[in-house]
Amino acid sequence: MKHGGDLLSYKDLYEGEFIDFSSNINPLGPPKALKEIIYENYHLVEAYPDIKYRKLKKSLSEYLKAPIKNILVGNGSMEIIDSLISKRNKLLVMTPAFSEYTIRARVKNMEIEEFHYEKDFKVDIKKLKGKINSDTILVLANPNNPTANTLKKEELLKIYKKIKEVNGYLVLDEAFYEFTNTDYDSVELFKEYNYENIGIIRAATKFFAIPALRLGYAIVDEKTKENIWTKSLSWNINIFADLAGRFIFKDKKYIKESREYVKREREYLLNKLEEIDWLKAYPSETNFILIKLLKYNEEEIFTFLAKRGILIRKCSSFKSLEDNHIRIAVKFREDNEKLIKYLKEI
Amino acid sequence: MKHGGDLLSYKDLYEGEFIDFSSNINPLGPPKALKEIIYENYHLVEAYPDIKYRKLKKSLSEYLKAPIKNILVGNGSMEIIDSLISKRNKLLVMTPAFSEYTIRARVKNMEIEEFHYEKDFKVDIKKLKGKINSDTILVLANPNNPTANTLKKEELLKIYKKIKEVNGYLVLDEAFYEFTNTDYDSVELFKEYNYENIGIIRAATKFFAIPALRLGYAIVDEKTKENIWTKSLSWNINIFADLAGRFIFKDKKYIKESREYVKREREYLLNKLEEIDWLKAYPSETNFILIKLLKYNEEEIFTFLAKRGILIRKCSSFKSLEDNHIRIAVKFREDNEKLIKYLKEI
Repeated sequence: MKHGGDLLSYKDLYEGEFIDFSSNINPLGPPKALKEIIYENYHLVEAYPDIKYRKLKKSLSEYLKAPIKNILVGNGSMEIIDSLISKRNKLLVMTPAFSEYTIRARVKNMEIEEFHYEKDFKVDIKKLKGKINSDTILVLANPNNPTANTLKKEELLKIYKKIKEVNGYLVLDEAFYEFTNTDYDSVELFKEYNYENIGIIRAATKFFAIPALRLGYAIVDEKTKENIWTKSLSWNINIFADLAGRFIFKDKKYIKESREYVKREREYLLNKLEEIDWLKAYPSETNFILIKLLKYNEEEIFTFLAKRGILIRKCSSFKSLEDNHIRIAVKFREDNEKLIKYLKEI
Repeated sequence: MKHGGDLLSYKDLYEGEFIDFSSNINPLGPPKALKEIIYENYHLVEAYPDIKYRKLKKSLSEYLKAPIKNILVGNGSMEIIDSLISKRNKLLVMTPAFSEYTIRARVKNMEIEEFHYEKDFKVDIKKLKGKINSDTILVLANPNNPTANTLKKEELLKIYKKIKEVNGYLVLDEAFYEFTNTDYDSVELFKEYNYENIGIIRAATKFFAIPALRLGYAIVDEKTKENIWTKSLSWNINIFADLAGRFIFKDKKYIKESREYVKREREYLLNKLEEIDWLKAYPSETNFILIKLLKYNEEEIFTFLAKRGILIRKCSSFKSLEDNHIRIAVKFREDNEKLIKYLKEI
């Protein structure tokens, strides 16, 4: 499968309902009140959304502490990534990474260059800088999917400064930002540069658990915002994504609880995985964990777990990971315990 | 205003709630059961929609009586129009027409040629055919917005045959199709041509009264479908548009009632408008009526009605209509009576 969460295809392996570890969505689900908000505002389906999305952008501006003039909204973060990667001719992309970056670059007939992580998914900053020139659109996911590694503030700044120096462009995909415990906020960090040569992607999809609503947003320089927004399709964001975006960011209690829950369960899983000698779990600061299989291939583990009602993400579709890696999401304690129990049985 | 339905901007003219004649949406609203369907399936917001939209396409295939291989779905019909107009270099567009066609062509730096309707919005078919060559992407709305005129079957076939002969491309925008009483169905009509050189746009927006959900679809030749779908953004349609599209087309009772209701009220309005000597109402087969003002300008009529809680569409933003046309939608009888009453007071 190209993406996680495709439960339809495995119904022959298990009769009951799968516990889905393949899709890396906040296990707590969306903020509880969202359902009522959608129901109470259902009548809004009959009118076009505000063509300027004024309330949505105001809500984002307050949440991100960034000026409205720098905020782009889109039909999922994919729409924004698609627009931003056209800013230069050549895509420089980390390997392994989310497959959609290269898919969009291929659609645009762009030149694509892969840059491989070092051992344990470290980035050789000096080598990476050597690849960057004025034609470069560098996409960095922070944390990266599926490896879960994050960039240190100094690393990010070094890369950005090179990008800025040669007038390349950096797309920083922070779709999992809220799960992390990094000691910096890139929106704050790049404010003094007016977001020149950088677009910071965030999304409601993963942390706020609403992939099906399609709400993405980004922070970019003013000129890029105007340029992309002018070319966007009218009413590109549906009313329920619009409504959700006016509400979810204000739910500070939910945000705090989600962060704490995922942190605790991630640590639980990492600790338990360490007890299993036929795998290696990579460090994670987010809601998913990449696992290297030292004795089995992904298919063996996948089938073993699927027969027991657990769905994990095989990683051979990510370039360079071959068939000996799997990715698991952080779920509820009960589910996490079940996963560990079965893994220990292998 | 560039589009109808922008009620926010006129709050200073009237304190109560406006009756909105400016937005041409089915007055009956969406099928009644849709609200429950959305509520009952709310949990689906937590998972990505089916990346292939299999159930949605099957539902459309049954409704349109067209093969799945010919069906394109999009984030509103705008997304599909945007893709289709790239199929040739030069946009040939009727004047007046929906402004978004030229907006999208300008975004793509296309050459744009306007073709003016004759008196009473007749099309000079011979003259139009003279403008068509292999570079031509001709957009025809049927019925056209804001003029409400439809093409006769023979006219449409003549235009299509010229397009096919020179290998141009015809985008036939039938967003208001279900409201009309034409004696042909273009989806059926062009089936024998395998939809070569033609894309027929339909939408759930107007007739099914769900503009805010963003669901558009089109019937195109198989190669065009594959080509555009391959380049589309993943998950471009949100789950509620997807769900709506699996359900609304099956509600035959609602479809019949809506058609009958709009027909009756359209005839009521056209009859009553004929009694007013300072205006001329153009014929209509759809849910809106274009009116030529013979003694006043649009601003005078707009303000007079707005102060009485009625919002109409000024038409000077449509090219060639100047400031002496207004467009009204067909609404509930009570509202239609109110509109006629005020118009007669002028």
